[in-house]
Amino acid sequence: MATLSVPSHVPSPSEDCEQLKKAFDGWGTNEKLIISILAHRNAAQRKAIRRTYTADFGDDLLKTLDKELTSDFESLLHLWTLDPAERDATLANRAVKKWTASNQVLLEIACTRSSHDLFLARQAYHCLFKKSIEEDVAQHTTGDFGKLLVLLVTSFRYEGPEVNTTLAKQEAKILRKHITDNACNHDEVLRIIATRSKTQLNATLNHYNNEFGNAINKDLKSDPKDEFLRALRSTIKCLTTPEKYFEKVLRLAINKTGTDEGALTRVIATRAEVDMKHIAAEYQRRSSIPLDKAIINDTHGDYEDLLLALIGHENDA
Amino acid sequence: MATLSVPSHVPSPSEDCEQLKKAFDGWGTNEKLIISILAHRNAAQRKAIRRTYTADFGDDLLKTLDKELTSDFESLLHLWTLDPAERDATLANRAVKKWTASNQVLLEIACTRSSHDLFLARQAYHCLFKKSIEEDVAQHTTGDFGKLLVLLVTSFRYEGPEVNTTLAKQEAKILRKHITDNACNHDEVLRIIATRSKTQLNATLNHYNNEFGNAINKDLKSDPKDEFLRALRSTIKCLTTPEKYFEKVLRLAINKTGTDEGALTRVIATRAEVDMKHIAAEYQRRSSIPLDKAIINDTHGDYEDLLLALIGHENDA
Repeated sequence: MATLSVPSHVPSPSEDCEQLKKAFDGWGTNEKLIISILAHRNAAQRKAIRRTYTADFGDDLLKTLDKELTSDFESLLHLWTLDPAERDATLANRAVKKWTASNQVLLEIACTRSSHDLFLARQAYHCLFKKSIEEDVAQHTTGDFGKLLVLLVTSFRYEGPEVNTTLAKQEAKILRKHITDNACNHDEVLRIIATRSKTQLNATLNHYNNEFGNAINKDLKSDPKDEFLRALRSTIKCLTTPEKYFEKVLRLAINKTGTDEGALTRVIATRAEVDMKHIAAEYQRRSSIPLDKAIINDTHGDYEDLLLALIGHENDA
Repeated sequence: MATLSVPSHVPSPSEDCEQLKKAFDGWGTNEKLIISILAHRNAAQRKAIRRTYTADFGDDLLKTLDKELTSDFESLLHLWTLDPAERDATLANRAVKKWTASNQVLLEIACTRSSHDLFLARQAYHCLFKKSIEEDVAQHTTGDFGKLLVLLVTSFRYEGPEVNTTLAKQEAKILRKHITDNACNHDEVLRIIATRSKTQLNATLNHYNNEFGNAINKDLKSDPKDEFLRALRSTIKCLTTPEKYFEKVLRLAINKTGTDEGALTRVIATRAEVDMKHIAAEYQRRSSIPLDKAIINDTHGDYEDLLLALIGHENDA
């Protein structure tokens, strides 16, 4: 499901570092060479490269990237090169610092990662920012959205296949009751969405749909401008159909007048090694244009090349 | 700080299992032999013994203990023999199932363990109960205490030594304001207590004490019968002076007409390998009688012997 392609023969970290060093040195930076290496190494290999680069040259590879490269290309390569847990912690911290109610990055991280990966991000947050993610989220967010977010970022959902059908029916009714009462911020709604396993929640929402005639997200659209309802809909989408959530983020980022590079960068950097194939298929289904074509139309230069490398475009060429 | 004593030469797990098997077999069980082994092995050693017992005899050691032993002795030995994370998960699950507002076991587990140990307990909860601890807590608790508990059991507090003095002063004021307003259940109060690092919270509470003339727990006693205030006081005690919290649990358990074996068992089983020396010293300071004497006065038989072994009494004999 990942689009990342790693060559069958991978050079040693020392060889990769040697090449990277060459790409930085001399007259002008060799971006193509950098892409050909870093965009085709998995998380463990990138980690080894960073460690080796420091050991061999006494420099931090990430700092060197920041110094030698610029703009969107640099942002994407930096984010991509980070360890996934550090990357999530970094994205979460940025989201907390520029908090707005429309900022959905935190719930995206909390709901689309596995329970263990979310925990690794919380650990990385400790190391990087000398604080816990929840203390920053709780301090900088407010209202119902803040309450929901704290529950989401601290969750450690069970991931087994068990479904309790009685419970699913019961909680579908609870959800329906509060939605009908216009009390979507009720503690019980937050509890069910924030703590149940994804499998269990899925069963609950299927019951909801079967029993009450609408998918829950349709019923959560009573006021399309309500930011909290919007957050609830995104949360449910992230938990149950993450590929559709990410497809929409990409679609909105690319179709905008002026591409939203921040969102495009984030989705490609965080999903290329996870489920990007699935997201790209969903994108093509929904937009009637392949994702790589849309990216070629909307971006250019080294940034474009790196995006395409990460979504596996070179393989098809 | 632990009272657990492990002999300088520890037999192999196979030798220990051989002896345990002997203790169970034949006419009557040899409780002394069982104590001499299991009460003097650390968590890793007990784990190895359990694994080896299953491999060598095809039986689960814990089930054998349950079958061969009875009453408080069995409860304590079972709890002690468990891996610490499994033990915490088991205690938390029991507390959730017989939920009352006076039940403080969950906040004790959430606040006196290290962040990593609390996380291990959450992992063990998944394995043992096919659910997350927070979904059970959120479902079975209510009101302000429930809200506090969910925050506490899901927390992953930062554990570094950093203190932000400005923040401490600021949050001491926030606490004071809401306490003065009789709004101790305010989201801000819960946020500060549930998310800040223990070191930071300690600084905040010191400022509170210096600035407003009372320790916060004194100000949280406005209504001694209020269960939520009681929970808040216990939470703060667990976070800042766990040895005093545990000393009081022991004192109330032992001084009762009819010992509270549940509480006594829980504290000894969970702290013998952690900070029992500190707790025992606090007990003697506060009760003017050494803990081992108090236990000898209040308990008897194999249960007494095991309690004494775990608090290191034999060493002094």
